[in-house]
Amino acid sequence: MRPTKFLLTERELPTHWYNIQADMKTLPGPGLHPQTLQPLTYDDMRVLLPHDLIVQEMCQDRWVPIPEEVMNIYALWRPTPLIRAHRLEEALGTPAHIYYKWEGTSPAGSHKPNTAIPIAYYNKVAGVKRIVTETGAGQWGSALSLACNLFGLECLVYMVKISFEQKPFRKSLMQTWGATVHASPSTTTNSGRAMLERDPNMPGSLSIAMSEAIEVAATDPNSTYALGSGLNHVLMHQTVLGLEAKKQMEMAGEYPDEIYGCCGGGSNFAGLSFPFLADKLAGNTNPHVVAVEPAACPTLTRGIYAYDHVDTARVGPVIPMYTLGSGFVPAGIHAGGLRFHGDAPLVCQLYKDGVIGAEAYRQLEVFEAAVTFARSEGIVPAPESAHAIRAAVNAALRAKEAGEQKVILFSLSGHGNFDMVAYDKYFAGDLEDYTLPQEEIDRALAEIAHLPKP
Amino acid sequence: MRPTKFLLTERELPTHWYNIQADMKTLPGPGLHPQTLQPLTYDDMRVLLPHDLIVQEMCQDRWVPIPEEVMNIYALWRPTPLIRAHRLEEALGTPAHIYYKWEGTSPAGSHKPNTAIPIAYYNKVAGVKRIVTETGAGQWGSALSLACNLFGLECLVYMVKISFEQKPFRKSLMQTWGATVHASPSTTTNSGRAMLERDPNMPGSLSIAMSEAIEVAATDPNSTYALGSGLNHVLMHQTVLGLEAKKQMEMAGEYPDEIYGCCGGGSNFAGLSFPFLADKLAGNTNPHVVAVEPAACPTLTRGIYAYDHVDTARVGPVIPMYTLGSGFVPAGIHAGGLRFHGDAPLVCQLYKDGVIGAEAYRQLEVFEAAVTFARSEGIVPAPESAHAIRAAVNAALRAKEAGEQKVILFSLSGHGNFDMVAYDKYFAGDLEDYTLPQEEIDRALAEIAHLPKP
Repeated sequence: MRPTKFLLTERELPTHWYNIQADMKTLPGPGLHPQTLQPLTYDDMRVLLPHDLIVQEMCQDRWVPIPEEVMNIYALWRPTPLIRAHRLEEALGTPAHIYYKWEGTSPAGSHKPNTAIPIAYYNKVAGVKRIVTETGAGQWGSALSLACNLFGLECLVYMVKISFEQKPFRKSLMQTWGATVHASPSTTTNSGRAMLERDPNMPGSLSIAMSEAIEVAATDPNSTYALGSGLNHVLMHQTVLGLEAKKQMEMAGEYPDEIYGCCGGGSNFAGLSFPFLADKLAGNTNPHVVAVEPAACPTLTRGIYAYDHVDTARVGPVIPMYTLGSGFVPAGIHAGGLRFHGDAPLVCQLYKDGVIGAEAYRQLEVFEAAVTFARSEGIVPAPESAHAIRAAVNAALRAKEAGEQKVILFSLSGHGNFDMVAYDKYFAGDLEDYTLPQEEIDRALAEIAHLPKP
Repeated sequence: MRPTKFLLTERELPTHWYNIQADMKTLPGPGLHPQTLQPLTYDDMRVLLPHDLIVQEMCQDRWVPIPEEVMNIYALWRPTPLIRAHRLEEALGTPAHIYYKWEGTSPAGSHKPNTAIPIAYYNKVAGVKRIVTETGAGQWGSALSLACNLFGLECLVYMVKISFEQKPFRKSLMQTWGATVHASPSTTTNSGRAMLERDPNMPGSLSIAMSEAIEVAATDPNSTYALGSGLNHVLMHQTVLGLEAKKQMEMAGEYPDEIYGCCGGGSNFAGLSFPFLADKLAGNTNPHVVAVEPAACPTLTRGIYAYDHVDTARVGPVIPMYTLGSGFVPAGIHAGGLRFHGDAPLVCQLYKDGVIGAEAYRQLEVFEAAVTFARSEGIVPAPESAHAIRAAVNAALRAKEAGEQKVILFSLSGHGNFDMVAYDKYFAGDLEDYTLPQEEIDRALAEIAHLPKP
């Protein structure tokens, strides 16, 4: 039998997360208060986050220990498999070796619980009663619902209304884990009511849902807020998957020449790539590391590096990042998630410094790669994850062209079981390619021209 | 860290399936031709099945080698984890040790590919071009679509119309793997047309869909038929999961006192239990082994042992089994699958001989156990699998009552990602308990009184 899966036992679970801040030449500037535009203080953050997570957000230590209570939950499904995609290689006729890190085996079906679990744990320790968050199609909301449930916390989720209505099954998942889910914009917050007054039929957006969640957390002393991507501590928690992948690549006896991860806020991309970037930043290896984004929301490839609000209603902080402008509304015809107008500051800094690259793909080529993958490797991927597949397939085809036996690693962040509507649309020919017009970017960026420059 | 998951490497994949026929004191009588009621000949079977599967159906060897081509596909996700349900034990406050074998990590999300893969392989070897089958909610249809796709065969699936319309996402999954899916009853077969003439709005049933699939396979020389449960070779293929579980229980240093598997046709129950029954039949151990069925379709617990047709239109064979009568129509309000009117002949014989037991549960108590499980172990189970959870939870509560440290093993056959409608109904209070009235059983059994007695 040819070796296909590289498995670790739970005794080989990483005991520490990797904090890339310890190794970066330049760190991004501080987050700013949305009203004063002054650097956020500990007290500003304490309104939204528990003490331990603020400490982690600022932490410069290279290694941060994973609490045993978190390890015990991780062990329900971690370590996850690293899989050699023999059948995909054969289908492409490439001499490249393709590996993928498979995160879809978590109960929520994606990598998101890797950070939801420690977030719930540190909140529990801090005596918090309820965590509030926003979610788009529901990957993050379901992960946090799971995590809160496992630690006996309440969970309140603002879910973008159009997903709440059209993709009800991740909502059902959240309810099975005991969470309360509101369609956003809702009548339960000032930001929601303001939006509904402007347009009662507004379909919602991630950025509006975020405003609602932040408002609730900021005004209830027993509640905190949790963000599923972007923040430093979130990216750090996700490194558990890349640290595993590194050990597993060693088991396979190879080191990746090229690494691809899909990038919305950046948590999955960072989780896989940061532990390998540790080697690169130390000058020991030189993998080509690429964040893959949709052409419909091309933050790194077409945004500008600027200070911008994280949310539409401007209740969240102002942070330095590549952005399309916080007023940007992602195209409704785009089926593939990854719709945030910015990216994690750490990912943006690495891109700005030339440590990582970025590529953007249109949705038809992304779904084509998803189907190629499903028909060779079996797994039906989440559309988000399929962006990384597309990039890895292209890399493998370049290797074929060049006759080079490249080693390619990508992150398969989740399964597509709750995304079959998008596959149906793809097969029915109802998906269109969409590239964001420059005027739209220019318009949204003009709105943030008054903010300080990083 | 407490040990939670017991993992095998792919080098430890079982190399042979276990064939319980070699160890049974009594074997069930032969299948009969539906018209002549004479024992099925090789030629009768050859119309529907390839040579190698007929040989396996009759085989008395204890061990049957697994072809390398099948092992290579199994290795995409097998061996699957055996998990110690620490958190469920704590939630129940039981001294029992609860283990579950988790089959939801396959690309189709259930144990069904364990037999779909070898079925597709042996058909490929025989030069078959297309496999035809039926499916209810789609677990089997999606598994066979996956398998056919991986071996480059066409797949045609007759899907019960009400599921085709109300639960479209497993259909989407089948289409992603390249299968053709018809709603049954359809206009493509004589049996389908006859049903539609009688009632154009008929919602369909598994038994009608089976008639359609068998008709197509029997009349097209390039097509064969595949059944996802019941047949001897299907049960044998599924033992790969029980053989793994046995090795994993050894890793855990325990042997199960009680074993529970959900039982519709019997493939998941047999897969887990048969390798342990090998010990029991040899007199070496004495585990209490229980097939768990729904009170809405209580084949073993309330059916009679008789020769009966496998399908409504009576084109398939007549076999000896516990049956509610092939004219039995399962209640529409039952949300949990497992609706076949009979059971696998091997499972029935073992029950008749007192080697195994059976328990039936109502759907509200089954969903209650499913939610308890989801909220303690994280995984949202398929409603079918939740029958085994219910029985295992009751066993653990009995152990608590008695203060006994029982070792309980059950099979978690699949995830509930495509069953969230049923969970929504449960939470909304729209599910009702239903126990099959005795008159209905009597009526359906009267229709088969003319058949030979086993």
